[in-house]
Amino acid sequence: MNETKREQHYTENVQDHLKQVESLLQKHALLETIVHRQELARDDRHPLLDTLVHKQHLAGLQRLLDGMHPADIAYILEALPIEQRLLVWGMVRPELDGDILIEVSDAVRDSLISSMSRDELREATEQLDTDEIADLAPDLPRHVIRDVFKSLPIGEREQLRAAMSYSEDSVGALMDFNMVHVREDVTLEVVSRYLRRFDELPDHTDQVFVVDRDDRFKGVLPINLIVVNEPEVIVGSIMLTDIIQLHPDDKADQAAQAFERYDLVSAPVVDEDGKLFGRVTVNVVLDFIREESETDLLNQAGLREEEDIFASVWKSAKNRWMWLALNLCTAFFASRVIGNFEGTIEKFVALATLMPIVAGIAGNSANQTTTIIIRSLALSQITHENARRLLIKELAIGLLNGLVWGGVAGLFAYFLYHSIPLGIVMTSAMLLNLMVGATVGMAIPLVMQRLGRDPAIGSSVMITAITDSGGFFIFLGLATIFLI
Amino acid sequence: MNETKREQHYTENVQDHLKQVESLLQKHALLETIVHRQELARDDRHPLLDTLVHKQHLAGLQRLLDGMHPADIAYILEALPIEQRLLVWGMVRPELDGDILIEVSDAVRDSLISSMSRDELREATEQLDTDEIADLAPDLPRHVIRDVFKSLPIGEREQLRAAMSYSEDSVGALMDFNMVHVREDVTLEVVSRYLRRFDELPDHTDQVFVVDRDDRFKGVLPINLIVVNEPEVIVGSIMLTDIIQLHPDDKADQAAQAFERYDLVSAPVVDEDGKLFGRVTVNVVLDFIREESETDLLNQAGLREEEDIFASVWKSAKNRWMWLALNLCTAFFASRVIGNFEGTIEKFVALATLMPIVAGIAGNSANQTTTIIIRSLALSQITHENARRLLIKELAIGLLNGLVWGGVAGLFAYFLYHSIPLGIVMTSAMLLNLMVGATVGMAIPLVMQRLGRDPAIGSSVMITAITDSGGFFIFLGLATIFLI
Repeated sequence: MNETKREQHYTENVQDHLKQVESLLQKHALLETIVHRQELARDDRHPLLDTLVHKQHLAGLQRLLDGMHPADIAYILEALPIEQRLLVWGMVRPELDGDILIEVSDAVRDSLISSMSRDELREATEQLDTDEIADLAPDLPRHVIRDVFKSLPIGEREQLRAAMSYSEDSVGALMDFNMVHVREDVTLEVVSRYLRRFDELPDHTDQVFVVDRDDRFKGVLPINLIVVNEPEVIVGSIMLTDIIQLHPDDKADQAAQAFERYDLVSAPVVDEDGKLFGRVTVNVVLDFIREESETDLLNQAGLREEEDIFASVWKSAKNRWMWLALNLCTAFFASRVIGNFEGTIEKFVALATLMPIVAGIAGNSANQTTTIIIRSLALSQITHENARRLLIKELAIGLLNGLVWGGVAGLFAYFLYHSIPLGIVMTSAMLLNLMVGATVGMAIPLVMQRLGRDPAIGSSVMITAITDSGGFFIFLGLATIFLI
Repeated sequence: MNETKREQHYTENVQDHLKQVESLLQKHALLETIVHRQELARDDRHPLLDTLVHKQHLAGLQRLLDGMHPADIAYILEALPIEQRLLVWGMVRPELDGDILIEVSDAVRDSLISSMSRDELREATEQLDTDEIADLAPDLPRHVIRDVFKSLPIGEREQLRAAMSYSEDSVGALMDFNMVHVREDVTLEVVSRYLRRFDELPDHTDQVFVVDRDDRFKGVLPINLIVVNEPEVIVGSIMLTDIIQLHPDDKADQAAQAFERYDLVSAPVVDEDGKLFGRVTVNVVLDFIREESETDLLNQAGLREEEDIFASVWKSAKNRWMWLALNLCTAFFASRVIGNFEGTIEKFVALATLMPIVAGIAGNSANQTTTIIIRSLALSQITHENARRLLIKELAIGLLNGLVWGGVAGLFAYFLYHSIPLGIVMTSAMLLNLMVGATVGMAIPLVMQRLGRDPAIGSSVMITAITDSGGFFIFLGLATIFLI
């Protein structure tokens, strides 16, 4: 990644840039329309002038883009509608193409890649490190991967093959191969001489790795220790050995937790033979954490994947359909539960008015429970030991909420319909449904975790389904028994 | 922060540690019970033996704790119920107290601090850097802060005062003061000699800052450049000047985005006079991003703050009440909307059965829209230019969903009740309510943003309130006009 171009006053600047790009594009579009109209009208009065102004806008845009960091161009591409995005993408210096494709979101990447020719894609990809090529690979046409693979030296082919073989949520997928290694029996003087042969060290080199003759990992030598120690000190005498070693098959989110907990900048990845294999750096972990948390938020709303905000209506709708279809099914089911009590409702129409309250509050409360449980599961805070204790606590909260809010709802019902039995039925139904909510709100994420599934995905649909149907059943059932 | 003790095989190890701690505590508790029973029964047969075994468990626990990283102890404290947590907390070496208080979540920190004496708190706090004291300050009793403040040297008092003056979401709150600075007219040789005077450099020192005689910020000198260049090179000739400068009043999340975008490890904080004031490091940014994303998830479920999973029922319930109360109010309102159509429902009870479907699906769909919009707002992707375009897109998706899922629901209604008008009313109501959902799902976060409020908090309550009441009103209203 090109690191040298950084904007002086970062965020304001990027947003200013976006506004400038938009205004240039707008002027450009306006001119296009005028030129087009002129062509239609065969009115050739000032075509030259217009073309000049027109070119000026595009030249201004070009200048703006040439001065920008790839990450900033990526941001601007994401914020532009598709036609304008492709216009700007065509003006980007080709040597930045690879870096920008790595930076943009998956959804936007698709739109950019589909506008590129096979040769352009190959050239863009060849500029990247092997670990970055592996990240891009799932989105590239297969023949491009094949071309790129052939063009790599043998060693890098092996790296690419290795990097592509790890699943997306493993340390292997976060790893890069840009590590500097030294032997433990040399002096810092020798290490310094060796490092001076580099024009610059790889990004995020806060430490060099110490390996033996067989590439087996022995420890790390922080760059800071090279700087604060005398040149004649031997590496082995100051290197750190009691440090975190990652394995390529470790879970990525556990590695991320290690980075957070121990404030790491980089960590060695060691294979099963104890050989140094690669490294993970904090910038990749940062991106991973951000993506994870965004995926959580998207999944909670039932969006299957990140959406390009300018994707076509059809594409966006497909991204959201699964969830709506699922919800429609559970709504049909809940509706049938009510259907079974139509006789009761006919006799006491107030029930229809009050039943959504019973269902809704329990759903909200259950989702609170689930959120707490999912968070604790993610932090591995829930053990066999304390799960029972937590269930009792959640049930107690449900009981308390049932008495308080069920009581309020019961009074609401009584004041509206002047029926004490109705008020009592209302309160009891709220109380029972809140207990149901606490139980499923706790049980569903735990069971999903036990089954090896992500508890953050789909828990809330199931919970709402149960608290809705359960709420209608409990409320209308109690009413049928005690009011009719 | 003590960085040297890191666990060899991190996560498994920490979870193993938790299990070991739990099992030792369990044995301990069992013994306590036995000893207690023996005392009650005045049966003094083996008290000595028991006490020895008892002590053995606690000694084992002590050994385990002594070997652990403060962040790991923090994790274990968070996963233990309150009595056991305080037992373990009492056994932690006092010199780690400060670091651990910084690491634990706010909710757990309260429980630890309230178990400590004034002197213990003062000693724990005095071990910390000024920026860390500032982080802890809001949770400490005021007299402890006063004691600590008095014990600091003048320079650090100023730093503490400054650090405490910035709001939680500003760069000032993320900043620390552990920066190393040099002049631009010296050679790398001189810089190296200067750095060798440190025993170790502050954590995350990937660069030293270059300042002039008046402390004005001139540029940065990456440590890696010191290492790869010859000693006689002058700092000014290789320092980087075109780099990000943060200001203490900048928004923290914009600084976090700069760290992500430009893959930073540290960045200088410069005051309005251009003087170097502090620095922000990536580990703090990582914690900030994690906390932000957790807060988002918690807020979406209406939890006011992070919950200590072992907090009392009363405390947890209070954390969740605001939301439930708010939801109850909107549910009461929706219920009154239905109440106005009781006459219609009495005549056509199928309406009561079908109405939750109309409300529910539009609510789900609107929340999908809001999630996309909130995410784009967070990334500053929404401009005046493209907002209208997005609204049209969301309305189009609503229309499409209305035709598809409204059609399905209409057929469902028709097959159940064999009434074509009912089916048409159902489909029309779904279609209209999905359009209402798309509009409010888009408008509410935008308006909240415009009003300077966080669009992630409370949007979903308002949206559900509108799609529920709106759905009931539209469906029952259409039914009253066309079916009765």
